[in-house]
Amino acid sequence: MNLLILSCGTRDKVVQYFKTAFAKQGRIVCTDCSPYAPALYEADAHYIVPRITAPEYLEVLYEICKKEAITGVLSLIDPELSLIAAHEAQFRALGVQIIGSDYELCERTLNKWELFGWMEAHGYSCAKTYCTMEAFRAALERGEVQFPVFVKPMKGSASIQIARADDMETAAFLFAHGEQMIIQEYMTGQEIGADVYIDLICKKVVSIFTKKKLVMRAGETDKAVSFIDEKLFAFITKFAEESGFAGQIDMDLFEKDGVYYISEVNPRFGGGYPHAYACGADHMALIRNNLMGIENPVQIGGYAVDKVMMKYNEIMLTTVYKEEASGGC
Amino acid sequence: MNLLILSCGTRDKVVQYFKTAFAKQGRIVCTDCSPYAPALYEADAHYIVPRITAPEYLEVLYEICKKEAITGVLSLIDPELSLIAAHEAQFRALGVQIIGSDYELCERTLNKWELFGWMEAHGYSCAKTYCTMEAFRAALERGEVQFPVFVKPMKGSASIQIARADDMETAAFLFAHGEQMIIQEYMTGQEIGADVYIDLICKKVVSIFTKKKLVMRAGETDKAVSFIDEKLFAFITKFAEESGFAGQIDMDLFEKDGVYYISEVNPRFGGGYPHAYACGADHMALIRNNLMGIENPVQIGGYAVDKVMMKYNEIMLTTVYKEEASGGC
Repeated sequence: MNLLILSCGTRDKVVQYFKTAFAKQGRIVCTDCSPYAPALYEADAHYIVPRITAPEYLEVLYEICKKEAITGVLSLIDPELSLIAAHEAQFRALGVQIIGSDYELCERTLNKWELFGWMEAHGYSCAKTYCTMEAFRAALERGEVQFPVFVKPMKGSASIQIARADDMETAAFLFAHGEQMIIQEYMTGQEIGADVYIDLICKKVVSIFTKKKLVMRAGETDKAVSFIDEKLFAFITKFAEESGFAGQIDMDLFEKDGVYYISEVNPRFGGGYPHAYACGADHMALIRNNLMGIENPVQIGGYAVDKVMMKYNEIMLTTVYKEEASGGC
Repeated sequence: MNLLILSCGTRDKVVQYFKTAFAKQGRIVCTDCSPYAPALYEADAHYIVPRITAPEYLEVLYEICKKEAITGVLSLIDPELSLIAAHEAQFRALGVQIIGSDYELCERTLNKWELFGWMEAHGYSCAKTYCTMEAFRAALERGEVQFPVFVKPMKGSASIQIARADDMETAAFLFAHGEQMIIQEYMTGQEIGADVYIDLICKKVVSIFTKKKLVMRAGETDKAVSFIDEKLFAFITKFAEESGFAGQIDMDLFEKDGVYYISEVNPRFGGGYPHAYACGADHMALIRNNLMGIENPVQIGGYAVDKVMMKYNEIMLTTVYKEEASGGC
């Protein structure tokens, strides 16, 4: 039982936690296109690989899977989720299980307009979203939405290119100056993050950790506090199971006047997951169990509440990389 | 011999390093206005204090100095450097030495226009800077500067409110829409960071660590590589000693066509200092020696070169803070 973590980047904590969960039972192998991805050096073995857009990329991964006798694989970056999901059969043929959602779901979460459409159709409260200026103007007129709004790319990761518009002139300018833009309601209220695990065997949500975000910094949660609300757990469980997610998902929500709104979903470990782990929601052990063929029991909640997570910078040193035969970016 | 670190924030590594240097010889006491400053919890003792702008702020610090038998004090944030420097006599009366530069120097480094004027007058190469649109237009006409340029506040910390202008219309707009703005040459070339220690007793530069910045993220150095250049050491030594800095300073420079340009100076530990420490430039030991009355020998260079520093997120947990009698922000 060996795990391959793709595009590990600076996610040292995730690799450390997996090493703890797999200790003596399996090895953790990491890849990244940069030799200066510190999480590489936390792993039992690591490979500098080509960029995910390189034509030979998947072949390189398959070779690593064979050489390292990999049994499970997951990626930590959005654009790679669909790529590996689309090649599920090839990984399976090598005895490798993808710890993640299927292709259709990965694509849906990448596309804010598609995700909104699905949520609207299935009755989940979410931020109002418009993909044409006409639709937005009409919604404004009937009082469905007010300024300020966010103008952002339909497909986009993190907070890249997201701008706030306080009036029609700015909204129209931003909409016209981007490719495939959407206009989204500016949500107010308490921002919430959820780390959710959907068992790969029984397909049920077996663990949820929720936190209120206190301080953001450069698009990431810098400080947050853990809490428990059974109503929120039920909402998340229904959403994740009805959607059909599998493995780890990271959700952003808002709470306003007692109603929860879904704002974003990423079918992978989010940057704030260490908070969940530190409070006792050990999803690495759940993944290990699944890879061993063990179904996890539903155990939602039960973690430490009122615990504030505070991020700070740790560093790792490595020597200047001298390029070898292998690729890299 | 006990050290007080003010506004410690998320600088956990700095506090950890001081604890190592002072082990068994003195205690490290930290303050911050937020109970969610993780570095607080690295210290031997910590205090949640009012904001630095609160009228009672200094009195609170003096009380801590007395109670904890503090012998040295330093701050980790720019706006506080001048404040404590201006009250050097009061700290001295309590037996507390400020590990830092005098008031005039703290003010000069905060004011980009003043710093530029001093560097020009003393023959140090630096980014061309203009404080009126007329001066900038004239410089453009005589070919002294070209677009793009940076438009930024004369007094400002980090990369707050810094915008790039590619044409006169944008430059004029940005200049008019900020308070006390300056226009600065857009430096190209290799960005460099220097961590410098000026001995408090002999006033000489006794240690310099330099690194080439490789990757920036949200205004901070995310990855950098250590290097040694005697010419750069001589340039930095001359600048720091002629300026009259004392204690730790953090410098940003550019190297272009073999010439070094000074871009920014902060008379405190910079966010990238852990790189220096990890390569062997232990400035905490130099501070400990100074507080013990020991002058440090000049020992510039001699650290590990070609070492790449990679940052990643570490986390710390604390319980939700229940406000007590003391202040906080």
